[in-house]
Amino acid sequence: MQNRVHNFSAGPAVLPEEVLREVQEEILNYRGHGLSVMEMSHRSAAFQEIMDNAVSAVKRILKLDDDYEVLYLQGGASTQFLMIPLNFCPDNKTANYINTGAWATKALKEAKKIGKKMYISASSEDKEFTYIPKDFNLSENPAYLHITTNNTIRGTEFKIDPDTGDVPLIADMSSNIMSKPIVAKKYALIYAGAQKNIGPAGTTLVIIRKDMIEKINPELPTMMDYNTHITKGSMFNTPSCFAIYVTGKVLKWIEDNGGLIEIEKKNIKKASYVYDVIDKSDFYRGTVVKEDRSMMNIPFRLPTEELEKKFIIESTEKGMLNLKGHRSVGGCRASLYNSLPMKAAEDLATFMQDFEKINK
Amino acid sequence: MQNRVHNFSAGPAVLPEEVLREVQEEILNYRGHGLSVMEMSHRSAAFQEIMDNAVSAVKRILKLDDDYEVLYLQGGASTQFLMIPLNFCPDNKTANYINTGAWATKALKEAKKIGKKMYISASSEDKEFTYIPKDFNLSENPAYLHITTNNTIRGTEFKIDPDTGDVPLIADMSSNIMSKPIVAKKYALIYAGAQKNIGPAGTTLVIIRKDMIEKINPELPTMMDYNTHITKGSMFNTPSCFAIYVTGKVLKWIEDNGGLIEIEKKNIKKASYVYDVIDKSDFYRGTVVKEDRSMMNIPFRLPTEELEKKFIIESTEKGMLNLKGHRSVGGCRASLYNSLPMKAAEDLATFMQDFEKINK
Repeated sequence: MQNRVHNFSAGPAVLPEEVLREVQEEILNYRGHGLSVMEMSHRSAAFQEIMDNAVSAVKRILKLDDDYEVLYLQGGASTQFLMIPLNFCPDNKTANYINTGAWATKALKEAKKIGKKMYISASSEDKEFTYIPKDFNLSENPAYLHITTNNTIRGTEFKIDPDTGDVPLIADMSSNIMSKPIVAKKYALIYAGAQKNIGPAGTTLVIIRKDMIEKINPELPTMMDYNTHITKGSMFNTPSCFAIYVTGKVLKWIEDNGGLIEIEKKNIKKASYVYDVIDKSDFYRGTVVKEDRSMMNIPFRLPTEELEKKFIIESTEKGMLNLKGHRSVGGCRASLYNSLPMKAAEDLATFMQDFEKINK
Repeated sequence: MQNRVHNFSAGPAVLPEEVLREVQEEILNYRGHGLSVMEMSHRSAAFQEIMDNAVSAVKRILKLDDDYEVLYLQGGASTQFLMIPLNFCPDNKTANYINTGAWATKALKEAKKIGKKMYISASSEDKEFTYIPKDFNLSENPAYLHITTNNTIRGTEFKIDPDTGDVPLIADMSSNIMSKPIVAKKYALIYAGAQKNIGPAGTTLVIIRKDMIEKINPELPTMMDYNTHITKGSMFNTPSCFAIYVTGKVLKWIEDNGGLIEIEKKNIKKASYVYDVIDKSDFYRGTVVKEDRSMMNIPFRLPTEELEKKFIIESTEKGMLNLKGHRSVGGCRASLYNSLPMKAAEDLATFMQDFEKINK
């Protein structure tokens, strides 16, 4: 077997090798049950335990109390873009959004598309989404304020959890969920596609504060109604069982590795390897205002597009994959999610320095 | 490792052991790429190939020509219950349904719930859904006729593909997809949660005849619009990658085993083992009209509920799992999907005969 590569993919992304080895061990016969998790009835005691563990781990890690419901749904963040205004923006209210780029833009467009009143509370579009707006203002009668805590494409990140008073704060945390401690109780709803920091693609974590339940629109299609999924513990219909099982293992890995305080320390160190090279160089150029830089996704440019192409080719040859920037912005991008080993960041930094020396 | 059990689960259900072994082999390092399929960008060439193979296998197995689009979506059949009337039932038309029990009932209720005109073209509710209606009548101006080709709970199955002339025929085939040859070209849309006959939970196969595309409601939320997914080849957003990968392997296994003609022969033989025991016995009692019996799900009763409990306990002890009937109808049920080995059906028949001798 060839060695495993350093995987800098923006998502689906690297998973802890320990988790994959456990999955491998259990794949034909889960803990002596004589069948794979993929073959298990979701109504079985064994799967219920898997689901319960995946739910309780989220509560422990984020220090949530019983005021929160934890769901594992399908359809990705894109389906949440729809469900949030459907459930929580009645006709007499306005959905508020901070626009920090691609995914935030999609979220606010969806609210508008389905006929909701929508208001942009703040935006960094004026500078191509290369910073995080520090202030925002709310519309009259706001249903909620929606933020995207990390922009995977541009590499910007909210460093604080905003204060919205009585207005429900809703956050898409797909690309930085559980990468650092947050003040979870500030949020009325948090959602995240699992496939970046906490698991494989196929399941979407949704965390809802219970006071939001009474605000749910009572006339919704069954699958679009959060109540459907809350009432049935994410098992109104067959959930994405295997993705939830692997996510549960990644969450356990986070706890076993010291939780979010330790994870953040490692993430700061990993990101520093790359940011330090960028900051000490006039060859590499960061694209984001320093104070708003993401710990998860680091976009950078080289002096020419030719050099960027060469950089991608040579890094790939050295087993460092997926360093190409998003097709909408070009350049290079390194994603350094929780599960990326420290050595991958070290090796990337070394490669960047070597590449600069040779090509400067 | 304990031996693998005989898994008679109604879904998620047994997968071919060969497929699980391949998955196990590739889980840390997919074909020398140095990473798991769970860690792969869905925009990578390697994953695109996985998706393309999963799509083309469906076309080959069902003998579909280029008139059909094949999608892998999220949210299960329950989400299709919503998307179908949203996309294909304009306000001036009526959604028609044949009601053959639980899942068909949910599908038609959803159409009604979202405010569509709904008409029940035929129903077997008069006899507790223990048969398949042989005739149906359509409403005026029908948008489509929806059928559920196999009732997992009651154990009934359509033996023919109905003729609907110019009216689009739409079918939920979740529990008998690819269990036998069908006249696929009769269908305007076929959908199936993967987790019974073709893969693990987490992905939903949707097959759409291209003439349906122009009928799609032009004003739909992004994720509810089939056009979104058709245009982007099921990758508008991150798909349920791993479930699609495993489904692709199961489809290859179907082809390697002779396709649907050979699969049907084996399924007939497997079902016969169990039905023969039932028919020759006055201890076991089938619950369905003989001519409409499902090849996939075989419900049966014993003389008393006490004996049914004993049957479940003793069969479980012998490594035959999930023989309990659905909670809504009680009794026993054996699900014999494609991937269930012949030996499991043989062993069950032997156990049933032994149990009868001892307990009669």
